[in-house]
Formats: sequence, C-alpha cells, structure tokens
Amino acid sequence: MTPPHPIESLNWRRLRYERWQDESEGWPRGTVRLPDGAIVPGYPSIGRILDLRAGVRTHFGDAPFWVEEKVDGYNVRVVRWRKQLLAFTRGGFLCPYTTDRVRRWIPAQPFLEHPDLVLCLEVAGPETPYAEHGPSYLKEDARPFAFDAMQLNRQGFWPRERFYALVDRYGIPTVERLGRFSLGTLDRLLPILARYEEERREGFVLKPALPGSQKRYLKYTTAASAIDDLRVGAPWLADLPAEYFTNRLLRLALALCEEGLDRKRHAEDLGKALLGPLTQAIAEFAQTRHVAHTYRCRLHTKTAALELMRHLKRHGKGRVRRRKLFRGEDGMWHLVFEREAASMSGILGHLLAGGAMFD
Amino acid sequence: MTPPHPIESLNWRRLRYERWQDESEGWPRGTVRLPDGAIVPGYPSIGRILDLRAGVRTHFGDAPFWVEEKVDGYNVRVVRWRKQLLAFTRGGFLCPYTTDRVRRWIPAQPFLEHPDLVLCLEVAGPETPYAEHGPSYLKEDARPFAFDAMQLNRQGFWPRERFYALVDRYGIPTVERLGRFSLGTLDRLLPILARYEEERREGFVLKPALPGSQKRYLKYTTAASAIDDLRVGAPWLADLPAEYFTNRLLRLALALCEEGLDRKRHAEDLGKALLGPLTQAIAEFAQTRHVAHTYRCRLHTKTAALELMRHLKRHGKGRVRRRKLFRGEDGMWHLVFEREAASMSGILGHLLAGGAMFD
Repeated sequence: MTPPHPIESLNWRRLRYERWQDESEGWPRGTVRLPDGAIVPGYPSIGRILDLRAGVRTHFGDAPFWVEEKVDGYNVRVVRWRKQLLAFTRGGFLCPYTTDRVRRWIPAQPFLEHPDLVLCLEVAGPETPYAEHGPSYLKEDARPFAFDAMQLNRQGFWPRERFYALVDRYGIPTVERLGRFSLGTLDRLLPILARYEEERREGFVLKPALPGSQKRYLKYTTAASAIDDLRVGAPWLADLPAEYFTNRLLRLALALCEEGLDRKRHAEDLGKALLGPLTQAIAEFAQTRHVAHTYRCRLHTKTAALELMRHLKRHGKGRVRRRKLFRGEDGMWHLVFEREAASMSGILGHLLAGGAMFD
Repeated sequence: MTPPHPIESLNWRRLRYERWQDESEGWPRGTVRLPDGAIVPGYPSIGRILDLRAGVRTHFGDAPFWVEEKVDGYNVRVVRWRKQLLAFTRGGFLCPYTTDRVRRWIPAQPFLEHPDLVLCLEVAGPETPYAEHGPSYLKEDARPFAFDAMQLNRQGFWPRERFYALVDRYGIPTVERLGRFSLGTLDRLLPILARYEEERREGFVLKPALPGSQKRYLKYTTAASAIDDLRVGAPWLADLPAEYFTNRLLRLALALCEEGLDRKRHAEDLGKALLGPLTQAIAEFAQTRHVAHTYRCRLHTKTAALELMRHLKRHGKGRVRRRKLFRGEDGMWHLVFEREAASMSGILGHLLAGGAMFD
C-alpha cells in the first residue's frame, strides 16, 4: 500500500491551502502553504522531561532559560493573509472557530508591522470546540494566550526578548511569564511549581535564553495535570490509545517522588479521577445507549458555527452531532454539540448485553 | 517474512516433545505431542464476561451451569508418561518446577485407571516461579487445585459429574465447587460473590451442566482481583501491554456498577494499588539501578531447580538472575531468583537521568 501523499489540499471559503499531514520537504507535520506560496511552519514537537532537575541539568547544563506557563488548551498559529487573520490548528487545518474569534482577540497592528509574523496562541477555557477541560482560573468562554512568534517561510522562534516586547507593545495576552532561571537558581522555581499544583495548572515550558542557542524547548507538567488528563480521558478509555493512560500514570508517580507531594491524597484523587467518570459513562450508556461529551462554544457569526460543524464532522475524531445553535443575550452564536466515544459505546454495548471478550 | 513454524521441537532430559506455538492442525496453542505421538490438547481460551447477569442470560439462557472458583495461579496440564507424571504449562512447555512437585501432590492411581487422563491444575501460592501474587488464604509455598480433566488425543472436557467423582475418589484437591446454578437461581450466587470480594478471590468459572452441551465455559472476575492485578502489574508499567491496565480499569468499573460495591473505598484502593508500587519502583531504581521482582519457590531436587532456571532464562520474559539456592530445614531446595522489568528499568534510567520523551 502506498502511504497517502504527505501534503493534502484543502479549502476554506475561497481559500485553497495545503496542509502537511506528515513531515515532508524539511517541514514538520502541520505546516501550511498559502496560495501565494507562503509557508506557515508547523509548530514543532516539544520534548517532555519527567524529572525537572535532571532534565534541566541534562539539556541546559548551566545555560539560562526562560520559564513560561504551559496552558491546557489547543495550539493555533495565526497569520494575516489578504487583510484577514487566519488561524491554523496544530495539524494544519484552518480553524473556523479560532479564525472567527481571533480578530477580536488580537490586534492587526503587529501583523502590519511584521507582515511575515506567525503568532502562536494557546486557546483555553471551559468553552472551546476541542478541549474538554480548561484551566481552573477560566470560568466561561475561551481566551487566547500568546506564547511564541515564528515567521513565514522559515523555522525557529523569535528570541524571547523580542517576543515579550511585541506582546507588551500591543497588549496581547500571554501565558504567565515566570522569568529567567538556570540550574543554579532552579530552587526559586519550586514554590511556583507548588502553586501550580495547588491551582491545578498544566505546567511549564522551558525555553533557552542565550541568543542563537541551539537548545530545544522542554516541557514539564504537574502531577495535578496528569490526574486531570486521566479524569478527562477516562470516558474515552477504549477510544484513546491505552498508552495515554500508562504515560500519565508514570508522569504522576515521578512528579510525586520529585516534588515530594502528599501520596495519600494523590492516590485518592487518582482513584476517583479514574473510577468516577468510568462509572458515570456506564450509567450514561445504560440511559442513552451511548457515551458522549458535550462541547459548547461561542462564535461571532452563524456561518462560522456551521463551518466549524462541517470541519469537525469531516476531520474530527468520533461521531459529532449538533445539539443547539442559538444567538445568546451576549450577541454571540452559541453552539452546543456532542462527540461520541464510539469505541467505548461499542464495547459497553457488547459487554452490557452479556458479550464475552477474549483477553 | 515467513512466520515461524507453529510447532516447535523441545527437549527435557531425554524427552523430546513438540509444542504448539500457535494454533495448527486443528489443535490450539499450547498443545503438546509426546514421542509416542500422543497429543496433550492445549487448554482453550475462556471468554470473559464483564456483566455477570447479562453474560449468563446471553450465553446460557435458561440452561444450568456449574460455578467453580477461579484461582489466581498458573495453569498446567498433567499426564502420566512412561511411569512419570509430567506437567506442561499453558504455552506447552514442560515445567521443571511443577513436574518436580506434582508427584507428591497428585496420586498416580487416577492415571493408572485412565491412561489417557489429562488433569488440569491451577498452581497457586506466595511461592511459585510464575505468579507474583497468590490467593490470600495461602500463606506459604504453593498448592495445586484441580479444575478439569481432558484426555489425550481429543479436545473437550470430562463432564463435571465424572470429574467431581474422580477427584473425590482419589482425594485430589480442587478449586472451590460452588454448585449448580441457572439464570433463575443466580441470586444465590450473589452472597458468594460478595464473600469472594471480601476474601479478594479471583472470581468464578461457569461451566455448562447439561450433558453434551455445546456451550462454552465463561469466566467472571471480582473487582478485588482487578485491583490486585493492577497492583502487581504497576512495577511492570512499561513492560506489559498498556491494555493490561485499561482492560482491568474497565473490569473494575463494570463490577462496581453491577455488584453495587462501595465506590469511595474502591477508588482509594485503586489509587493506592497503582501509585504505591510505582513510587516504590522509582525508589528501588534510585537505589539499585533496576526494577525487579523476587520470586521464591521450593523443589524436591536441586536438578529440577537448575532446570527451572534454564527454562526461565531461555523462555521467560525479562532478564532472570538466580539469587539463592539452598536446602531448607524442611528438606526442600529453596530457589530465590529475580526477574527484571527491563523496559521499566530502561525508561526510568532515561528519565531520571534527565532524558526527554516525545509523546
């Protein structure tokens, strides 16, 4: 069987663009080519360390690095093309939702000043079309958090100082910036990590601080985020790769050991995080004959909401069903849709009807 | 690539036998052919139901079935060949350990009376070369529990009444026999299931009771055994298939729902069962640079102990190292060996040295 061509051609309205389904021509997965040939580079994978101190020692040695909050949302890259801001997902799809929202979130000026700017945002909150779970400090809707700038037609990030100057000049909201650290001053990060555990934030991204450094970014996530991921993933037990669960168990155990967290409390949280949603999914299946998650999000236009539904049905995982689309008192279009955990529904259907498994 | 031939030729002492590595010639995996051509049929896979009542309704309808304890040990088939009892593992290997022990566990008479008898035993206890965990009612060494009789050169089990008569006549120890049930009398099984949960027994095997029934066996395991499996498996998180863990989470959640067990207590037990052994494995690795489990078992002869070590090194999973072999005050040879969780050791070595993962 020939593998599919790594570059796929797609349309959004009158825009025809290409998306890198896989690494090709030296560009990573998620890279996008616009009609004028401009390349929006894919956002690279970031290595995860599971032991913060040892990871810093091994990767940065004594070199300084910036630490920023890793926000639990979804990653998009924003460019300005023919007078409009466009947002592309990590996979390289034009996102109708983010494209609809981004023009009120981010001013056009930085793109006028830097026409080849690619602004990287994490979009997070309780109401997004992709994330089932958001940071606890966001109580409604969704918000953007800028965390990197890249440029068209080349790989690599803007230096931190230049990026910080840009976002400050234009008042662009960013992830929390925690400052500059090195192996020698890592202890100053520990109280912040403890606060992140308490606030159930996702974790840190560590970015090299020396100009021209060839070092790569690293990420480290909290024990709290491992447990939250397990809770969110549990109803998708049969739909997600089983390693989703084992990887997070390992992260959790290593974070507990290194951070010296309360093991009894975390064991209880872990057990509840797994069993609560699983027994709830079983009860839900008994009522409705399927397991599904309900998503809500708000858009400025009805057209964008309909485009989003088409996008999710065509490219998303699991069966997606629209539940509601109405104009709210805030003047926004409120979309409510369900995504079915298809394998979980299938397996529960088989087992609760008395079916057997051979394992 | 050509798949390996499904039938492998092996030696034990002067016995040359063949082992079915896979289904072939109509016989299941684990089938053995002895030098005179006699076939020891492989023990078939048993379907697992995760909803006891629905499973019974679907598979047995109104037909009666016997219920027996499922003991948590390892499965061997015993035959008498040239005046000696030989024991073969589920995979079809001659087991030097069980062959050494079985002549004091099981009398020869039933095999004299039935020369083509294949006696199926579960061997369980805190000291076996294969199981890391045994039933809580066994405090030392290992014990056999007969649960089926088959015969040479054909598939299928002896009818229950005939099997029960055989083991009773010769005083052969068996798994707990719980009696005859049907869908209409299933409620009588529920207090026994509750007792099995309390005693942390593994579960039940359900066997059709009508003569000539074409129905297959079924198994159902307790919530307690799902948690115990997770505890025992946790240090092997990276060595076992990730589905080992997700399958048991699903079993646990379904058993909790059907049996109406205390969710808070089981959530706490689950969290501790996963995190306790994982953090212990990390601490062990920090001390010894590897994660390993120590096994102990007792044999009548030193020769059998050495044969067992050779068998485990050649055919077992993970690196095996002998730690001790000495004659105890009970006159038995005591073997102590370690099996390394090789992937877990490798991954912890990488991560605790600050290595990154891309996930």
